[in-house]
Amino acid sequence: MLRTHTCGELRLSDVNTEVTLSGWVQRTRDKGGMIWIDLRDRYGITQLMLDDSKTPAELMAKARELGREFVIQATGTVIERVSKNDKIPTGAIEIKVTALDILNPAKLPPFLIEDETDGGDDIRMKYRYLDLRRGVVRQNLQLRHRVAQQTRTYLDSQNFIEVETPVLIKSTPEGARDFVVPSRMNPGEFYALPQSPQTFKQLLMVSGFDRYYQIVKCFRDEDLRADRQPEFTQIDCEMSFVTQEDVLQMFEGLVRHLFKTVKNIDLAEVPRMTYAEAMQRYGSDKPDVRFGMEFCYLKDQAPALLSREGAVYKLPSGGLGVFDSAEVVVGICAKGCAEYTRKQVDELTEWVKRPQIGAKGLVYVRYNADGTLKSSVDKFYSEEDLKQWAAVFDAEPGDLMLILAGEANKTRKQLNELRLEMGSRLGLRSPDDYKVLWVLDFPLLEYGEEEQRWFAMHHPFTSPKPEDIPLLATDPGAVRANAYDMVINGTEVGGGSVRIFQRPLQMQMFELLGFTPEEAKAQFGFLMEAFEFGAPPHAGIAFGFDRLCSLFGGADSIRDFIAFPKNNSGRDVMIDSPSPIAQAQLDELKIATK
Amino acid sequence: MLRTHTCGELRLSDVNTEVTLSGWVQRTRDKGGMIWIDLRDRYGITQLMLDDSKTPAELMAKARELGREFVIQATGTVIERVSKNDKIPTGAIEIKVTALDILNPAKLPPFLIEDETDGGDDIRMKYRYLDLRRGVVRQNLQLRHRVAQQTRTYLDSQNFIEVETPVLIKSTPEGARDFVVPSRMNPGEFYALPQSPQTFKQLLMVSGFDRYYQIVKCFRDEDLRADRQPEFTQIDCEMSFVTQEDVLQMFEGLVRHLFKTVKNIDLAEVPRMTYAEAMQRYGSDKPDVRFGMEFCYLKDQAPALLSREGAVYKLPSGGLGVFDSAEVVVGICAKGCAEYTRKQVDELTEWVKRPQIGAKGLVYVRYNADGTLKSSVDKFYSEEDLKQWAAVFDAEPGDLMLILAGEANKTRKQLNELRLEMGSRLGLRSPDDYKVLWVLDFPLLEYGEEEQRWFAMHHPFTSPKPEDIPLLATDPGAVRANAYDMVINGTEVGGGSVRIFQRPLQMQMFELLGFTPEEAKAQFGFLMEAFEFGAPPHAGIAFGFDRLCSLFGGADSIRDFIAFPKNNSGRDVMIDSPSPIAQAQLDELKIATK
Repeated sequence: MLRTHTCGELRLSDVNTEVTLSGWVQRTRDKGGMIWIDLRDRYGITQLMLDDSKTPAELMAKARELGREFVIQATGTVIERVSKNDKIPTGAIEIKVTALDILNPAKLPPFLIEDETDGGDDIRMKYRYLDLRRGVVRQNLQLRHRVAQQTRTYLDSQNFIEVETPVLIKSTPEGARDFVVPSRMNPGEFYALPQSPQTFKQLLMVSGFDRYYQIVKCFRDEDLRADRQPEFTQIDCEMSFVTQEDVLQMFEGLVRHLFKTVKNIDLAEVPRMTYAEAMQRYGSDKPDVRFGMEFCYLKDQAPALLSREGAVYKLPSGGLGVFDSAEVVVGICAKGCAEYTRKQVDELTEWVKRPQIGAKGLVYVRYNADGTLKSSVDKFYSEEDLKQWAAVFDAEPGDLMLILAGEANKTRKQLNELRLEMGSRLGLRSPDDYKVLWVLDFPLLEYGEEEQRWFAMHHPFTSPKPEDIPLLATDPGAVRANAYDMVINGTEVGGGSVRIFQRPLQMQMFELLGFTPEEAKAQFGFLMEAFEFGAPPHAGIAFGFDRLCSLFGGADSIRDFIAFPKNNSGRDVMIDSPSPIAQAQLDELKIATK
Repeated sequence: MLRTHTCGELRLSDVNTEVTLSGWVQRTRDKGGMIWIDLRDRYGITQLMLDDSKTPAELMAKARELGREFVIQATGTVIERVSKNDKIPTGAIEIKVTALDILNPAKLPPFLIEDETDGGDDIRMKYRYLDLRRGVVRQNLQLRHRVAQQTRTYLDSQNFIEVETPVLIKSTPEGARDFVVPSRMNPGEFYALPQSPQTFKQLLMVSGFDRYYQIVKCFRDEDLRADRQPEFTQIDCEMSFVTQEDVLQMFEGLVRHLFKTVKNIDLAEVPRMTYAEAMQRYGSDKPDVRFGMEFCYLKDQAPALLSREGAVYKLPSGGLGVFDSAEVVVGICAKGCAEYTRKQVDELTEWVKRPQIGAKGLVYVRYNADGTLKSSVDKFYSEEDLKQWAAVFDAEPGDLMLILAGEANKTRKQLNELRLEMGSRLGLRSPDDYKVLWVLDFPLLEYGEEEQRWFAMHHPFTSPKPEDIPLLATDPGAVRANAYDMVINGTEVGGGSVRIFQRPLQMQMFELLGFTPEEAKAQFGFLMEAFEFGAPPHAGIAFGFDRLCSLFGGADSIRDFIAFPKNNSGRDVMIDSPSPIAQAQLDELKIATK
């Protein structure tokens, strides 16, 4: 080893020890007679010291050559520091240097290697290997390492077997777009990279593996929205002979284990909510339940679903077209926001009218501190009406009610966005406050208006609730799935389902999804056949590992938790990939670019 | 859970417990009044029992419907067996069944789901999910799981961080052929799948990660020889601020940990041998040292390298052309084989003359039990000569000396094959006998006669031995690398090197390998640049994980240790991949097949 100790381990108890350290020069301070060097490695920073009066001139001169990020090896004696630094664990000591070697000089990096850097996104991505030197970035990846290890520890303890499934598989048209790989040995044919190991993990259940997991790379050739990556990592799991309840318990256990071991947080029991309730109360299948601000309905197409006791209210026809014609009139109560200025309210109105949200307008009701009510619809509704609204909204003097109206699904989605925005503005969404939620009973199918056909909401292998199976023939949209999502702080971190394990039901599903029997056979024939050879009841789940890590790290972007991420065009700007390949390669593969 | 216990856990102490088990019907025995069912899951087999005199007729009828591999759920009481089966852990008990459900019927599988099956390779690969049900195959994958977990446990304990490197990277012409992935978002450009994460792990060292590992899929588009897979798994590791000795110690530690925890074997200290010595003594850079049978030289172009004391012998010119003109005359001593019949010796001669071996012939000398010597070259050499040969071979009466002659490298390779064959024939290569070896000091470069240029023997990032650097300019073939292989039982399971970490030396290497400065920059510019920003001395190793597992499992083929392997044409015959893709997909990718 080119060191006897790391830069993070020496303490007062090591004083008088002769040590050799290696690392990077974080900074040097030259006070004429004295030179201090902060030497950095993954484990910490240790201060080196050279004293003109006791150090050979040659050594002093060498120390003066050092620039930032030089790689050096230093030997010396551990001494107690006169002025201690209690911000770092090694702050009580320094090394009185007796020998110094430059292992590799360094050009000045294009941005500061500090937690607070002066480098923009682009330059840091181009020099990702330098960005990774920064403590904050490295800690993200160390966190990721811990989450991975603890995931394995938990799943191992629960008898899960890690099995590697293939990366070179077969393209299937269902779902997102595949990345494909031309086969040289089978000209004209292609492998596909897996969007998930779904069919393989189901086959492993047919094989009797009973409990499978894998932390595995998956691939989707999608147009990259912010914070999507063409390659991403899943914690992929499957179990046999289980009910939905068993899966929920098992993976609530995993998440509890991770919070405890990685964050030292004792997670409360994870509450559960049906999809229908989540949509009604929050307008989202992944509600952020760190804060309340639940939906309050002045008018609803399905009042039976109203979750808040006593909130059923009959909105009178007031002459306001958008209310009178609306499927739903629904709002939120922003506590303590009655004092919002007209300008602030106008700005909110503009905010919801942006194309990303798409609302036509925003109705507000101020519940002034003096008990009076003032709204943007005073022309149409009496103060008595507004009082009743305040009751529905559970509003108190000082609150601001924000109301949207229109077609039910659209309006709920818009109000969901507004609720999240208000939650952020009111500081109700701290990244250190973790609220975990199970969302259950998703619809099995959703209708594609454009394609005029049903699509699987989760995937084609998800089992309908047994009691809803008769509806498959009569009212497919009403069929609920044994499917579940885990939501943390408004982000879906995992999802899964009980699977279909019997061939006739799977065939019925494929038929509903518009597969001809020939197409079903060509694409999933092996799975259909496997179901005939003794497939056990099984269920599973997959967690977005990058996302889970970013949540644990309290960050918004998954990119910071991936060592070498790609940009929004799917490019790795560091290695400059993708890139053209040689004509000879194309020829061997028997393909041509157009 | 659809069970209270697994099929592997009930014991005598559970007698009188009411239990529910789920699993597969391994077999049923119907003795008229009694029916026994062997119920199987991953954890074991438990016997179910139904007794005509105490079981409702309806239940007996259902039990009679069961076929092999039906998936059932059975409830009943644990009772002590009258005739116990001491071959299985549950053999002392059986379940007196009170309820039975068929969860899924099964067609008769196309081959026996038993350790000894009647299914050939092809049918088992097509129905791999059924093959995986067989205990022997599942145990291979459970072993693989244990090796992976223990690898992580060890490396975690040594402060290694697991970092995921990208799968979609950039094609480089050096090395084997890449699999490529057309980029839809960057038409005309391609990603490549990594042959190894080599450059990324080196960049992680530049980033200061200090110790990295990953159990990672790698890809090579090679013409598949037996027992190669287009996708395979590596244990990939890299360390900073280390010497070769540190790496050898660290990974000898890993292998010792794996032998102890997975096989309960206390591995002896791993001996070391230079490449030159291995070639001289065994004709191979991965000698199988489970047995001796070392090379004995009657004539050698470099007698100084002779390893066995006193074995230097001057072969007289005897008039035998192949000996007189040979660079080397070298043989092995097959202990106790003097009684080989003429037919056996002829068969061995034919064996070495096969094109795969390519020897021109085989000279033998029998050292008969009565002390006389008889050879196939009696015409050319006296018994006195043969006596001297016997001394060189350390042969005793009863032994058979087998001798090849010709060009040094070729002849050694041929004799290596013969030695391994004789080792196998003499039962000296038991898979349960583990002999681990480090082979060191590989040549840095090898000359490609066809291409008329130097190639990196390991890869272009391998560091020459510092003392040999001057030879780079004068005698490149003589330069030794700081490169090392780990060999177990004659199989290379891992290899690595100290890396070049300084730009000038790396540029010199690229130049030697025939890269123009432009090519070097286009392909490895980011690495060259990284070396200028403070790269630490570093070194690493990668283990072939599939191979390591097959060795631990005592098997020859890696295919048995991969859940879903591909065949020799790179096909997955189960899912029928690769396969044609839709024209629309090709159009989107802007490529065409030819």
